Amino acid sequence: MTTMANETWLDEVRWDDRGLVPAIAQDVASGKVLMVAWMNRESLALTAKNGEAVYWSRSRGRLWRKGEESGHVQKVREIRLDCDADVVLLRVEQIGGIACHTGRERCFFRKLEGNRWTETDPVLKSPQAIYGDDKE
Amino acid sequence: MTTMANETWLDEVRWDDRGLVPAIAQDVASGKVLMVAWMNRESLALTAKNGEAVYWSRSRGRLWRKGEESGHVQKVREIRLDCDADVVLLRVEQIGGIACHTGRERCFFRKLEGNRWTETDPVLKSPQAIYGDDKE
Repeated sequence: MTTMANETWLDEVRWDDRGLVPAIAQDVASGKVLMVAWMNRESLALTAKNGEAVYWSRSRGRLWRKGEESGHVQKVREIRLDCDADVVLLRVEQIGGIACHTGRERCFFRKLEGNRWTETDPVLKSPQAIYGDDKE
Repeated sequence: MTTMANETWLDEVRWDDRGLVPAIAQDVASGKVLMVAWMNRESLALTAKNGEAVYWSRSRGRLWRKGEESGHVQKVREIRLDCDADVVLLRVEQIGGIACHTGRERCFFRKLEGNRWTETDPVLKSPQAIYGDDKE
């Protein structure tokens, strides 16, 4: 692949054998970890360029502009890379206050209590109200 | 594999084809995302049982008790699971205030500025001072 001079930062990311890295989205105001999704080179480039999170949907095999169906866009305030260059961290403003396709604020709504995963976060909006009959 | 009645919570995790899931460690006080490592079933079970983070080192092919060489143990205050049950979130107290093997507070010490990854966090203790001649 030819690389433009201004794309060397994308070459520094250690894409896995599928060309992907995990990306963590963290709420910039609350500090809560909202979700983890995957990015390929194009999705990271678009995210940086436009300031809105774009992931790679492994199930659909295509770019996934977060919020494209739900309206729950993520405005990206900061992009970070870890020491091994194989995980990306986005600090985002979560539009609508809902990151999870279940209609909750965040995907990490289950907490281990003793030997049980307990749901700690309420559904703020039903998936049907968000997506109609589809889910994101 | 036989499962004890009190281990059904481990069955609910969607281990990948290598038997692993990514685990995010987040500082419980500052909210900063410190690092991402891998866990297998045994490491998650030990983490929950003992309240200190144990990961699976892919490079060494063995359990990795975080801090076993560095002393930078992670006291686990909360364990969370995401909606797809394939990512774990640990909220931890980071002993020594250093999570990264480079001697920095966190592994996400690089930030995208324009077209460049810029280091934003100082080295608090040199790797040599932490590990002697080895690195964790």
